[in-house]
Amino acid sequence: MALKRIGILTGGGDCPGLNAVIRAVAKNAMGAGIEVIGIEDGYLGLIEDRFCPLKRDDVSNILTLGGTILGSCNKANPSSYAVRQDGKWVMKDVRDQVIKHYKKAGLDALVVIGGDGTMSGAAKLIDAGMSIVGVPKTIDNDLWGSDVTFGHDTAVTTASDALDKVHTTASSHHRVMVVEIMGRYAGWLALNAGVASGADVILIPEIAFDIEKVAAKCVERSKIGKRFTIIAAGEGAKQAGGKMFIDHINEASPDPIRLGGVAKFVSDQVEKITGIESRSIVLGHIQRGGPPTPRDRLLATGFGHHAMCLVHKGSFGRVVIKKNGVIDSIPIVDVADKVRTVPLDHPMLEAARALGTSFGD
Amino acid sequence: MALKRIGILTGGGDCPGLNAVIRAVAKNAMGAGIEVIGIEDGYLGLIEDRFCPLKRDDVSNILTLGGTILGSCNKANPSSYAVRQDGKWVMKDVRDQVIKHYKKAGLDALVVIGGDGTMSGAAKLIDAGMSIVGVPKTIDNDLWGSDVTFGHDTAVTTASDALDKVHTTASSHHRVMVVEIMGRYAGWLALNAGVASGADVILIPEIAFDIEKVAAKCVERSKIGKRFTIIAAGEGAKQAGGKMFIDHINEASPDPIRLGGVAKFVSDQVEKITGIESRSIVLGHIQRGGPPTPRDRLLATGFGHHAMCLVHKGSFGRVVIKKNGVIDSIPIVDVADKVRTVPLDHPMLEAARALGTSFGD
Amino acid sequence: MALKRIGILTGGGDCPGLNAVIRAVAKNAMGAGIEVIGIEDGYLGLIEDRFCPLKRDDVSNILTLGGTILGSCNKANPSSYAVRQDGKWVMKDVRDQVIKHYKKAGLDALVVIGGDGTMSGAAKLIDAGMSIVGVPKTIDNDLWGSDVTFGHDTAVTTASDALDKVHTTASSHHRVMVVEIMGRYAGWLALNAGVASGADVILIPEIAFDIEKVAAKCVERSKIGKRFTIIAAGEGAKQAGGKMFIDHINEASPDPIRLGGVAKFVSDQVEKITGIESRSIVLGHIQRGGPPTPRDRLLATGFGHHAMCLVHKGSFGRVVIKKNGVIDSIPIVDVADKVRTVPLDHPMLEAARALGTSFGD
Amino acid sequence: MALKRIGILTGGGDCPGLNAVIRAVAKNAMGAGIEVIGIEDGYLGLIEDRFCPLKRDDVSNILTLGGTILGSCNKANPSSYAVRQDGKWVMKDVRDQVIKHYKKAGLDALVVIGGDGTMSGAAKLIDAGMSIVGVPKTIDNDLWGSDVTFGHDTAVTTASDALDKVHTTASSHHRVMVVEIMGRYAGWLALNAGVASGADVILIPEIAFDIEKVAAKCVERSKIGKRFTIIAAGEGAKQAGGKMFIDHINEASPDPIRLGGVAKFVSDQVEKITGIESRSIVLGHIQRGGPPTPRDRLLATGFGHHAMCLVHKGSFGRVVIKKNGVIDSIPIVDVADKVRTVPLDHPMLEAARALGTSFGD
Repeated sequence: MALKRIGILTGGGDCPGLNAVIRAVAKNAMGAGIEVIGIEDGYLGLIEDRFCPLKRDDVSNILTLGGTILGSCNKANPSSYAVRQDGKWVMKDVRDQVIKHYKKAGLDALVVIGGDGTMSGAAKLIDAGMSIVGVPKTIDNDLWGSDVTFGHDTAVTTASDALDKVHTTASSHHRVMVVEIMGRYAGWLALNAGVASGADVILIPEIAFDIEKVAAKCVERSKIGKRFTIIAAGEGAKQAGGKMFIDHINEASPDPIRLGGVAKFVSDQVEKITGIESRSIVLGHIQRGGPPTPRDRLLATGFGHHAMCLVHKGSFGRVVIKKNGVIDSIPIVDVADKVRTVPLDHPMLEAARALGTSFGD
Repeated sequence: MALKRIGILTGGGDCPGLNAVIRAVAKNAMGAGIEVIGIEDGYLGLIEDRFCPLKRDDVSNILTLGGTILGSCNKANPSSYAVRQDGKWVMKDVRDQVIKHYKKAGLDALVVIGGDGTMSGAAKLIDAGMSIVGVPKTIDNDLWGSDVTFGHDTAVTTASDALDKVHTTASSHHRVMVVEIMGRYAGWLALNAGVASGADVILIPEIAFDIEKVAAKCVERSKIGKRFTIIAAGEGAKQAGGKMFIDHINEASPDPIRLGGVAKFVSDQVEKITGIESRSIVLGHIQRGGPPTPRDRLLATGFGHHAMCLVHKGSFGRVVIKKNGVIDSIPIVDVADKVRTVPLDHPMLEAARALGTSFGD
Repeated sequence: MALKRIGILTGGGDCPGLNAVIRAVAKNAMGAGIEVIGIEDGYLGLIEDRFCPLKRDDVSNILTLGGTILGSCNKANPSSYAVRQDGKWVMKDVRDQVIKHYKKAGLDALVVIGGDGTMSGAAKLIDAGMSIVGVPKTIDNDLWGSDVTFGHDTAVTTASDALDKVHTTASSHHRVMVVEIMGRYAGWLALNAGVASGADVILIPEIAFDIEKVAAKCVERSKIGKRFTIIAAGEGAKQAGGKMFIDHINEASPDPIRLGGVAKFVSDQVEKITGIESRSIVLGHIQRGGPPTPRDRLLATGFGHHAMCLVHKGSFGRVVIKKNGVIDSIPIVDVADKVRTVPLDHPMLEAARALGTSFGD
Repeated sequence: MALKRIGILTGGGDCPGLNAVIRAVAKNAMGAGIEVIGIEDGYLGLIEDRFCPLKRDDVSNILTLGGTILGSCNKANPSSYAVRQDGKWVMKDVRDQVIKHYKKAGLDALVVIGGDGTMSGAAKLIDAGMSIVGVPKTIDNDLWGSDVTFGHDTAVTTASDALDKVHTTASSHHRVMVVEIMGRYAGWLALNAGVASGADVILIPEIAFDIEKVAAKCVERSKIGKRFTIIAAGEGAKQAGGKMFIDHINEASPDPIRLGGVAKFVSDQVEKITGIESRSIVLGHIQRGGPPTPRDRLLATGFGHHAMCLVHKGSFGRVVIKKNGVIDSIPIVDVADKVRTVPLDHPMLEAARALGTSFGD
């Protein structure tokens, strides 16, 4: 049976390359005579019946554009959606409502672009009978099952550029500079940006750090005439036996490092221990924004095209991945709610150590 | 009397273009047969007698390099220098010591590159008999007497790039994004970056803001279908009747906005008042780093060359400026410890208002 | 009398910042309750009656966009327009037709953004009774009467980036690299990009070069251990007594340097004279493209706003300029068909010479 | 037997990431107590005995630097080297001389970074008894045996940026723009940059093009309201039955397309056939220059580290590759003088076709 009409939505946090996927899916579909319906603000548009046909012009000139023309939402989950009832918020399963909108719009399939949360939501909609193909996105590169995801290269480029920039300040002022890089559960971004910019110390969630060893590295560099140290700190990095620093931010705790995060902690402690002037910066949301790098545009285009190949073949319930250099797919249920962390024997870790980089352990 | 040997130093905070000035001064001098002595770490090198002859190769390939090859220090002041005496730190005038080193090295003149603090120090060394020419540097563009200083264009470019990046996140997620931009006393950087990136609200130290009006602007945008707002906040911006938010950071106060700064305050308050999801980021030191833009390289080269023209003519005690489009000079004493703020009738303010930008007033 | 409706068009070659002017004009006008009509493809749209109302959304998100949303045309001239008559092309004055369309659309004024050709056309339409304000654009920075025009900083940045890039190749391979930069009649672009990137030789139309002296500079550098030379050549640069090389391209001549341009000539001759391997590249149209730099966005925004100030005041027949650091205006007739070349006593020329740059003279 | 001293050289054309490899090799070696000797200008330094010990400072701050600090040469080949004898140039095998210098310097092994020509030279030195490990470099990405090589991502980024820039000019002026991209034998660079920038037509050496079909694509776009076309043309692209256009440049032929190359040919013919204004630009050497992208720095660092792993293990005669996502090695003889072209069933080709891109066939 030939498909007539498909829907597309983007869920979760902003990620460079989302529009490149939307364009690839839509151009592929239009070329095959399939109508494409854009769904606004992720699952929220599916729940609230906000659908909007995409025309050829809507997907022109968006390849290089950051963000998503469809809007996104990282809260709405059809199987557990907050609804106001009797003056209180209660969590409800609104999948029936979603399927009603999906059928009313005459959709034969849905392409869902998002992270592990979005894929987890998709898995539950598939259970309810929807024909879904997933496209993973995460700047953190931590999607289980895929070696690489679009958005990551752009985020690495932004973080690496920031490390390059503070390098000149650090060397001119003989300071320790700590740069906090995104990545709560996986250290890919801090590791890749850190190695790409020659950071002297890289802290990642996978390797608990010892602040004394971090400080010792700064002192060791001073002794060989290097009067500054650059530290790339993944936001989820933690001390041996310690909690993640970002927990402290979210709690209304009286903890003195509240509002600080790992970069501020490391900077303060290193200055205290070594007496070397130290500064920290938190890169934050700029890592999610901006136009995708050419490589991310290629990957996003390849992912979008592959998603449509799955749609054409009727291979639903699968998510696109890249494994061993090849774009392929695996069942969506396999990736839901999982995280791919940096293995401790990863060649890049080994290379960095051989070049003198400290991981604070 | 022909000059034989000059010294050069860089003081104060890091600023893109410092190396371009060093290169211009050194190439000009070497071309005229004058030796150039680099002084390490600003006034500190002058005090501690750390001098190092610059050769042609030392100033090759540094035009595009951020930071300063000479190192800098933003604390040492020859007329009030912290010295350990009888187990305590006391402030001493060490200008005699500086002049001794200066004479021992056989220097006929000194080129001093720095901000208002460095120029203030230079003024006191001139009083003590030294032949000094000043070159101003500030990414904040707030040097009194000059319409523009190198480093500012690079900082505007970095801040503007960050605003462009958060724009895609803001529009995809329908958020208010507040970006904190450097500038404690003058709003040039926030104003220029904000207008260059089409920020919807710009907060600067020169215009006290009313948080209710900032929130109202966000709501007004929602009403006309714009589901996001970008706010460029100069770090020195304050509420009518309020203190600078950065004061709170430095105090050991129990104030709830401690560690927060203006961006966090504005973000929190706007979310509270409007219910629209809001986020803040603090750009920090990346605004001081990186390779200078071509424009900053041109300006720094022009300033360095002009400094040498003053040296050749024996016009000491003057600082290079650019006024009404022309590179010129004024007495160093005129600029010491002064700040050039954004005048309230500046054409760019007027233009921004006419285009719909709010200044929170 | 209050204005109700204005038109806007962009003429001549592509230039970064055109959309920023369109946005500034439109936002200012809309804020004052004035309707804005976009005219397509420069004067061609005026002649062919292709008008299109601009809405607020049309001018959103275009500040950072290169090119022009209105389209351009660098051929159509209302006072001398090629029309097919009796099987032949004849030049006709179609200003009556233009004025008919202008009146039919109910326009009270027209904002014309373009180069000297466009301003020359505007001057003739003013003669015919139209109310016009001009905004100058040229990446060449050669508009008579203005110290600077938007688009130039972006072009300098692109050309300077290319010079920086070939620098690494030149130094790795010990080559002479000649980079041809736009600028037929004025050398601003080659001069500014050349100085900003530390080019060793800069050739501009204003200074006739002697190829022997260019070659001698390359040899001199070899002797002091610099095994490469970077030459920035403005496309209009010529030998003493010679024609512009670009003439040769356009003629159907048997000249051996046909298709070559100045960069190829210089590269070939330098290799022949010195025996040092030489290469040339022609930057071409990339110098006109891409997103405007923040500085160009600021200048374009300032120019657009000032154009509307003139419109509001009814000061027609004037073109916006920036002189001595201030945005102002002068009569359009003053700038038509004139070119502002680099004066031979320009401080940047003098600075470059003092730093060792050769101009081939 | 522990190694005491190794040599390192870079051969062939400039490529971003060379310094990152040098740094990785040197830091790894120094960390293991091995001395590193830099050999100047590729095989030429080996022939002429120009060796220079590398110290820690020599390889600091070079990670982000384009070019090669060692210099390169793409002509000298030890087994066939041009020597002046009896007033004539004769090709001689100078491998004995090379081995003499190698032994005199006390080298235990040599790391050779270069393209297929350099690897071919290395294979012949291995035959003569030298212990060599190869690291491949090519911006063209056409090394046989490796899925990817460093330098390519940077070149794709530069070419893609140029395509993005001409996009605005093309759309503003309703033109056909043809951009010539490097790649004589393989189309990877044109393909990747073309897809990454959404080029409408991509011409590569692997797919002979029909100029009528290229022209037809431009006309087809006009009909659906797209008034411009972007063509990415690999320099080695040719017509069915035709010669490479670059041949014509090197021959002293009377051919009218002499000096033109493929871009000029396509531009001229498309304008002739369709009447649509067309322009061409040749990107040239800027594709080889500039700082490596973060991804290329990572790959180059990984390659350099892996080369040292081979050295440590005594696995000589091998060249580092990346295959199926993993860094590994294969015998150098396997890659010498071979080229990896784009397979006609490559997924990216298929994806591009499905999205509407024409390959002129």
